[in-house]
Amino acid sequence: MTTPADPATGATPATALDTLAGSSHGKRALLGVSEPLLLDSGATLGPFTVAYETYGTLNAERSNAVLVCHALTGDHYVASDNPVTGKPGWWTDLVGPGRAVDTDRFFVICSNVLGGCMGTTGPRDLNPATGKPYGLDFPVITVGDMVRAQALLIDHLGIDTLFCVIGGSMGGMQVLQWAAAYPDRVFAAVPIATAARHSAQNIAFHEVGRQAIMADPEWRGGSYLDFGTRPRAGLAVARMAAHITYLSEPALHRKFGRRLQSREKIGFTFDADFQVESYLRHQGSSFVERFDANSYLYITRAMDYFDLWEAHGGVLANAFRGTRTRFCVVAFTSDWLFPTAENRKIVHALNAVAANVSFVEIETDKGHDAFLLDEPVFHATLTGFIGAAWAARQKALP
Amino acid sequence: MTTPADPATGATPATALDTLAGSSHGKRALLGVSEPLLLDSGATLGPFTVAYETYGTLNAERSNAVLVCHALTGDHYVASDNPVTGKPGWWTDLVGPGRAVDTDRFFVICSNVLGGCMGTTGPRDLNPATGKPYGLDFPVITVGDMVRAQALLIDHLGIDTLFCVIGGSMGGMQVLQWAAAYPDRVFAAVPIATAARHSAQNIAFHEVGRQAIMADPEWRGGSYLDFGTRPRAGLAVARMAAHITYLSEPALHRKFGRRLQSREKIGFTFDADFQVESYLRHQGSSFVERFDANSYLYITRAMDYFDLWEAHGGVLANAFRGTRTRFCVVAFTSDWLFPTAENRKIVHALNAVAANVSFVEIETDKGHDAFLLDEPVFHATLTGFIGAAWAARQKALP
Repeated sequence: MTTPADPATGATPATALDTLAGSSHGKRALLGVSEPLLLDSGATLGPFTVAYETYGTLNAERSNAVLVCHALTGDHYVASDNPVTGKPGWWTDLVGPGRAVDTDRFFVICSNVLGGCMGTTGPRDLNPATGKPYGLDFPVITVGDMVRAQALLIDHLGIDTLFCVIGGSMGGMQVLQWAAAYPDRVFAAVPIATAARHSAQNIAFHEVGRQAIMADPEWRGGSYLDFGTRPRAGLAVARMAAHITYLSEPALHRKFGRRLQSREKIGFTFDADFQVESYLRHQGSSFVERFDANSYLYITRAMDYFDLWEAHGGVLANAFRGTRTRFCVVAFTSDWLFPTAENRKIVHALNAVAANVSFVEIETDKGHDAFLLDEPVFHATLTGFIGAAWAARQKALP
Repeated sequence: MTTPADPATGATPATALDTLAGSSHGKRALLGVSEPLLLDSGATLGPFTVAYETYGTLNAERSNAVLVCHALTGDHYVASDNPVTGKPGWWTDLVGPGRAVDTDRFFVICSNVLGGCMGTTGPRDLNPATGKPYGLDFPVITVGDMVRAQALLIDHLGIDTLFCVIGGSMGGMQVLQWAAAYPDRVFAAVPIATAARHSAQNIAFHEVGRQAIMADPEWRGGSYLDFGTRPRAGLAVARMAAHITYLSEPALHRKFGRRLQSREKIGFTFDADFQVESYLRHQGSSFVERFDANSYLYITRAMDYFDLWEAHGGVLANAFRGTRTRFCVVAFTSDWLFPTAENRKIVHALNAVAANVSFVEIETDKGHDAFLLDEPVFHATLTGFIGAAWAARQKALP
């Protein structure tokens, strides 16, 4: 069972995430200063901070920039140690010297998304209008807004055209949004394990997570930070439910099956008899140490709202008409959260406008999480695509 | 968002379920009187009550009894109005005059499972040792225990051999347990959309539900009834998560897609913008009106513990060696909770002992819930199998 707040005081122990607040881990850009960012909702935001990391060196032509977009609970520590968890970056298998996204060759940028909790302005930050954390006063944002904020960062860095935009899951949604909104600023795009709109089933799973958070009395209508507390139990349940969707039935069977945790026989209790229960509880409780519950609400909502069909008159191909971007769309066979069929719809839309597109379906039993894991064929695919695209980019240079 | 208890008083409104407590809806049998029931855990229980319904008439030979086993959140109102919800019985499409389980021909019995909350003894009932509701003092039970209790009920009704035992999901687990534990008392067995052991993924989903309940402060260590409250919010979240697993991605897409609820455009809020959110919230809040949270813990645990392999030396076929029961195993193509592969393992084990077994996979996009829905091919299959088995049963009679 997850550890709730002390019911007497509502107090929860300080976490690494709390320690981060106001600290200066990573690089920061203050954006939207001269003009606030106009959001899809019609609200404005600004000035706001974007936290980011860079790896490698921008070349003289400013042509070798790669933007990595992170997923729902990711952050900008793509290839360097995460100061909150102390763990290595989340994509060190793919981003680094000699990797598919080769930091000896490319200038890699990764920024924490708008609404996040790792340094970019989000609901846990102070609302200048009240001097208190935004909570639910933070405007509801979209993937379009996240990408607008990233574009301001890219401007800030003096980069006109990105050589490549790459990301998986919600990161893949951002890649598609970049390609649709800023076609001339994206030479190559790699959307991975994603969809051009969030499915009803995925919205349903997100809604379960949001309800779990909002059902926790410690959520306090979103104002928990004002009370020095946090909806730990609700956020842990949200994470547990989501985590199942990141794996696959075969992977869970292979990793855990019905094996028992630290015992010979079932215990006839509600303790974690099975390894899979113990694993899930750990996923829930460790997530709470590093993520803000309101950020979880805002970012899941942004994913639910993502619909490139709706945004382009019901025809996905319209999102990419006339594009000169080179695409590589990647799906994983056992991914049931963003199944191959959803990725293939992106390919069909790109085909319909005669775009330059490769499509690769990687055979794996690791489910949606495969995009974060050691998958040699996946990595070889990216090395090949990015290498070929870079050769083309260099030919295209004046 | 679900309606939590009044935080000031902890009070929750009375529900139809509360009204049922101590009432006399349905038939009741007091069992385990002369000797308490020995449970798989080693604990004993008795005397205890089993609530049940019957339909049709037992014939003079006592050969026409059909036992219907209900699923996790089902009850004994299989073919008559449910006094708690006021809704028709849950399997009226299949059980009734002229239906596949023809009440003009068969004597149909359905009992609320041990640990349930609809009249059979469970954690919401008074513990004679304390005079207070059992709560977590109720012993952890298994599908084997549920079937033992049913067998006592069948004894009580003066029936030696059941013509047929039929059920879906956890009901199917009970069917398999009946066939394994009492092979000479089961002429025909129809396990539907089930498995001979609960998978790691299914245990994981159940654990999410249990954690959601136990994270609700109103659960109060399982003693909520002593405080006149109930973990409504947690139970609603548990139901929402589970409900997604009962459907299928295509069914959710067909029923809801990304259609909005009572609005033209997305609202940029955390209200239920999408129909699928509104639907899920309704599933959660209506479930709370009819189900006890601790029963949910106990019954999901019983399903998790179910493993006919483990109980038979790691060889499922051993569960059925020498059986003369006729089996009809039914699976649904879009059921990802109890997928065809799990049902086929049952068939393979029965084949390995040369049992009389039919296997039917029904084409449908309705997911696991298909077994409760209007599926004509499914119904025709059962009509055919049960009719043929009944003809064989009559020939077999002395």
